[in-house]
Amino acid sequence: MSDKPVEILSEAKAWKLLEGSVLGRLALCVDGNPELFPLNAYAADGKILFHTSPGTKLRELVVNDRAVFETDAFTSRSGWSVVAKGRARILTDAAEIAAAEATPLHAWIPTEKTAYVQLDVDEITGRRFVFGAEATVV
Amino acid sequence: MSDKPVEILSEAKAWKLLEGSVLGRLALCVDGNPELFPLNAYAADGKILFHTSPGTKLRELVVNDRAVFETDAFTSRSGWSVVAKGRARILTDAAEIAAAEATPLHAWIPTEKTAYVQLDVDEITGRRFVFGAEATVV
Repeated sequence: MSDKPVEILSEAKAWKLLEGSVLGRLALCVDGNPELFPLNAYAADGKILFHTSPGTKLRELVVNDRAVFETDAFTSRSGWSVVAKGRARILTDAAEIAAAEATPLHAWIPTEKTAYVQLDVDEITGRRFVFGAEATVV
Repeated sequence: MSDKPVEILSEAKAWKLLEGSVLGRLALCVDGNPELFPLNAYAADGKILFHTSPGTKLRELVVNDRAVFETDAFTSRSGWSVVAKGRARILTDAAEIAAAEATPLHAWIPTEKTAYVQLDVDEITGRRFVFGAEATVV
């Protein structure tokens, strides 16, 4: 690993980090204004799955399906961040819903969750950070 | 504290959590498409400060100044998330820049950082989560 302050990760490495994450934030634009939600997520095969409940998030996705998901991990000395862009849609196809139900997508919060949202990723970027000139890479 | 799965926090509590955070994610809309950046941040007095370098982030702020900042902390058992919305602008006033320079805004990454961005918050929401019916509140 590099000890440069910022290292651009390969797409393969970014996907590996993304696939190991269970939590992140999804950003959407609604009438030109950004919305940002922390969400449980499951990423694999170029896609990211989320649960959603009937309400704000679901409605906003209908208006504009471009979305960005970010996940990261930081200590006081180093960290990484992965940003994945794509198109998000509510799954309505029975086969796709069945496939989503077979994933280990976390559903930690036992609130009403009635739909799956899938982000079909078309761009992924990853960066690794080292904080401070004397930092040890972890 | 509540052991409900999701607890809506007061604005005062949300501000306190935000003011204790040094890292989060800022979302903007550019031509109707969301952009999302992990950033160091310093929040106080209704405002959140960030560093930015001349490039993408700076340019996007000129196009649309509505922005959303999110910060959170999670363990496997519980967590919280604060979302702050407002208008973001590049500081150009000398007194405002001097005030920003006097803050403890972290600048962990020693890359070129030539401007301050300030988010003047007009809406803040905070939520606390407890995962699983048997979880202990931490």
